[in-house]
Amino acid sequence: MLLKWPDWKAYGRRYFREDLLAALVVSVLLIPQSIAYAMLAGLPPQVGLYASLLPLVFYAALGSSPHLGLGPVAVLALMIAQTLGQAPPGVSPSEAALVLAAEVGLILALAAALRLDALAALLSVPVLHGFETGATLSIAASQLPVLLGSPAKGFELPALLESAWASGFAWQGGAAAYGLAALLLLLAARRWLKGMAARLAPLLILLGAIALAAGSDAVSRGVPLVGALPPLHLGLALPRLDAGLWLAMLPGALLVALVGFVSSLVVAESLGRRANVRIDARAELRGLAGANLAAALSGGMPVAASFSRSVLMSDAGSRTRMTGVFIALAMGAAMLLLAGPLGLLPKAVLAATIMVAVLSGLKLGPYRDAWRYARPEALLMLTVSLLVLCWSVTAALGLGVLGSIALLLQRTARPHVALIGRVPGTEHYRNIDRHAVECLPGVLGLRIDESLLFTNARSLSDVVQLHVNAHPDTRRVVLQMSPVNAIDFSGLEALRELHDNLARQQIRLDLSEVKGPVLDRLRAGAWQGWFRGQVFLSHHQGMEAGS
Amino acid sequence: MLLKWPDWKAYGRRYFREDLLAALVVSVLLIPQSIAYAMLAGLPPQVGLYASLLPLVFYAALGSSPHLGLGPVAVLALMIAQTLGQAPPGVSPSEAALVLAAEVGLILALAAALRLDALAALLSVPVLHGFETGATLSIAASQLPVLLGSPAKGFELPALLESAWASGFAWQGGAAAYGLAALLLLLAARRWLKGMAARLAPLLILLGAIALAAGSDAVSRGVPLVGALPPLHLGLALPRLDAGLWLAMLPGALLVALVGFVSSLVVAESLGRRANVRIDARAELRGLAGANLAAALSGGMPVAASFSRSVLMSDAGSRTRMTGVFIALAMGAAMLLLAGPLGLLPKAVLAATIMVAVLSGLKLGPYRDAWRYARPEALLMLTVSLLVLCWSVTAALGLGVLGSIALLLQRTARPHVALIGRVPGTEHYRNIDRHAVECLPGVLGLRIDESLLFTNARSLSDVVQLHVNAHPDTRRVVLQMSPVNAIDFSGLEALRELHDNLARQQIRLDLSEVKGPVLDRLRAGAWQGWFRGQVFLSHHQGMEAGS
Repeated sequence: MLLKWPDWKAYGRRYFREDLLAALVVSVLLIPQSIAYAMLAGLPPQVGLYASLLPLVFYAALGSSPHLGLGPVAVLALMIAQTLGQAPPGVSPSEAALVLAAEVGLILALAAALRLDALAALLSVPVLHGFETGATLSIAASQLPVLLGSPAKGFELPALLESAWASGFAWQGGAAAYGLAALLLLLAARRWLKGMAARLAPLLILLGAIALAAGSDAVSRGVPLVGALPPLHLGLALPRLDAGLWLAMLPGALLVALVGFVSSLVVAESLGRRANVRIDARAELRGLAGANLAAALSGGMPVAASFSRSVLMSDAGSRTRMTGVFIALAMGAAMLLLAGPLGLLPKAVLAATIMVAVLSGLKLGPYRDAWRYARPEALLMLTVSLLVLCWSVTAALGLGVLGSIALLLQRTARPHVALIGRVPGTEHYRNIDRHAVECLPGVLGLRIDESLLFTNARSLSDVVQLHVNAHPDTRRVVLQMSPVNAIDFSGLEALRELHDNLARQQIRLDLSEVKGPVLDRLRAGAWQGWFRGQVFLSHHQGMEAGS
Repeated sequence: MLLKWPDWKAYGRRYFREDLLAALVVSVLLIPQSIAYAMLAGLPPQVGLYASLLPLVFYAALGSSPHLGLGPVAVLALMIAQTLGQAPPGVSPSEAALVLAAEVGLILALAAALRLDALAALLSVPVLHGFETGATLSIAASQLPVLLGSPAKGFELPALLESAWASGFAWQGGAAAYGLAALLLLLAARRWLKGMAARLAPLLILLGAIALAAGSDAVSRGVPLVGALPPLHLGLALPRLDAGLWLAMLPGALLVALVGFVSSLVVAESLGRRANVRIDARAELRGLAGANLAAALSGGMPVAASFSRSVLMSDAGSRTRMTGVFIALAMGAAMLLLAGPLGLLPKAVLAATIMVAVLSGLKLGPYRDAWRYARPEALLMLTVSLLVLCWSVTAALGLGVLGSIALLLQRTARPHVALIGRVPGTEHYRNIDRHAVECLPGVLGLRIDESLLFTNARSLSDVVQLHVNAHPDTRRVVLQMSPVNAIDFSGLEALRELHDNLARQQIRLDLSEVKGPVLDRLRAGAWQGWFRGQVFLSHHQGMEAGS
């Protein structure tokens, strides 16, 4: 939680030290990652640093999680790289990235205003996991040529292989030496170091590489370096207002907003539960909206929460969202101190950092679990991963969401309707398939076990007709509606269709135990115009009424 | 139903006369409509006639409804026109239409093989009605310039107005005279004629217009005519195999297949219920697949069921799918007899036929009903209509489907979970908000009232936590699962998250009354790896077990 003014003193006493320490630990990881993910997105390195300043302050003011490691994120960087490719000619990637961040911010703000946080459900677990794994592999593959000093480029495997083939699988010894050495050191640090040493290792390896590159005149040996960073200049400016550019970025912005929000929400909720902090989905929308708008105004790129930095921030003991403000201050200081030296960093070392960071988050267990639990969902997960790896993130997400919905519709196409009878001697009614109950001749008691929504409404008449066909003496059908929480317009039409269909067979339709809000809604609609039956307060009254 | 060989004699005795009569009545309407809808789609007139021959025979062999008036349809013609605009340069509209029909047929055949008929639910009532109304108005608007002999063109209002403006709102006296006269006569026939006279009137008006045009040398007066039809030539040929063309037609084909299938299914089911004929959704998929593939091989265009012709076919007494075969024969005969004269028909008269046909199906009542019943769905319906009318059918359908799903996710985002207690003296448990029941201290009985699916799974832990917070003495939670019909992979993850979250608070999670198939599935998954609770056969056992 962020604190009100009178609480500052209490804050200083209770949380200040813990938050500051956590901020320093996270900053050490954020410095190389912010530069690396900016370059992954095809942007100049300083863009990643700018995206790690103001956005964190805005999230601290508007969000709800004390654990989110906000800033540039690898998976989003991949999506940004593919989206920037859609920009009209003559627009620089940095300009396009600002417009993209502005759109992401506006979309999230709109979603917060319209209370659309429920849309997070669009990304089911198979789609989200399949997507993140595919993106991880795609990012790791794209860094392999950089690690080896090869000119090959691309995120999707076919493009990458084609490009490597075209370059004759060339590589550069100096870059490869830096890259492989950094990779081995990073892996060794992960494997054998613990605590603060493990946390400082990536920064120390980076600084060592810079020192070595400076000492050995790497640039004249042809080792590709990050290159000089411009001096820190935190000016605010509106992104370029160009309708064609805004329109070209829009589809990508929608997907970046969705993935950024859902992946951040999942991390915030999971870390929040451990620390007993309540996360508010709409506050998260507002926090991410503010962060992205701040990025758009201050020379950054779209931001979200990184899984690894968030876990680190939680482990390092962050207690309030002030940690984000301290990280921003530490990043500002780092930029002032390190802007010169960072320019001397070999790109291959940065590639090693990215590969280790993303591959350490790789989880293949869920594929096995999903395969055991539900084949169609496992296939969906796998398909989404392969589409990311071989085609495009847009196609992968689009088809993944459609696939989830298709599976849902297949599962829910027919409403569950049970034939119910009276438990002897009581006024309770139960499913006749599972209880010894009594039925009345000529009156069919049916219980609708689900809300009537467009996903299942079309089959209502069919499902009821099957019961009627099995009892040809039926003169009256009483539908027990107590499990029905909602009826949408398609459900209303289905109810009317059922009513008219039964009426053609001289069968009367009555309802019982309709929930209050559902009945109010029915009465507000024009159902008096066609409904000829009665609504009973209890199913027992409904069953007895006609006899 | 279609009959087996030994039944032909019975068929001849019982249904032959009725089917033949219905076929003739429908053919009289189909002749002008097939030509008109082909031209509406931007295709030569004979394409519509070819689409009314073989496809009807294939549907008769594979489908399940004796009432579907198959062939060219106005709404599909609009979609086809917009899709053909996406064809690569150098491809004629007729060639593209064959590829489109082939793709529609293959998509429907694939859907039949994969049992995807549940996807029909994608088009909720608001989207389908909004789309059909928008398409009707767009078609009527597009025919106004043809009726008046104006060179203006276009389906969407902005393009149409721009085109009319560019032509200086020019019109042609001769065409307008034919068009307005035909319009008045058609409306008068609808208003005052009954029975067979009303059914024959459109054909007689057409023949009268042809005679007048031939006698008065309309062509030299500049009245635009349909133009000479090539002689009947029913050759079979594969559509052009060109990857670029097939890819360009694919998005349109998906939408044409979806709209064609759903609108045909709705008509078949509604007419089937009246006549007590059972409609099989998968047979409908196969029938439409066969009809569209036949159209692709025999020079036609995508086909589906026309609402007006289907109602006519049902009213005229069609008893079996043989009616479709007789219609095809009648259409073949008409082509042989009328190919010459039809070429002399003024286009303005055809435009009048289309306007009267589509506008007679216009229904505005559902907008009012939806507005009274559920504002968001009424706005969705209106938005879809306006998008069709002013932008494009693809955008309208895409955004409409997304809108339906967004409303669904908003409605179902939180699973309904009720706190339940024991009805004194029994082993029954009921919602404590609505019944006088007893609770056990330290044990929380909760009933999950819905299947756990990705639409609601993410909030499960939150919803349960609220109940736990209200009862801080909780040591055990027993979830009654009897209303849960299914748990998808996202639901399984949510259950695990709930389990782990409760475990962190030293609370044990038990389940009761888990349905057989759901429990089998859970056991097939790896849940033994993490689930530490027990599964009880009855909720009462579960509640008593710990105490």
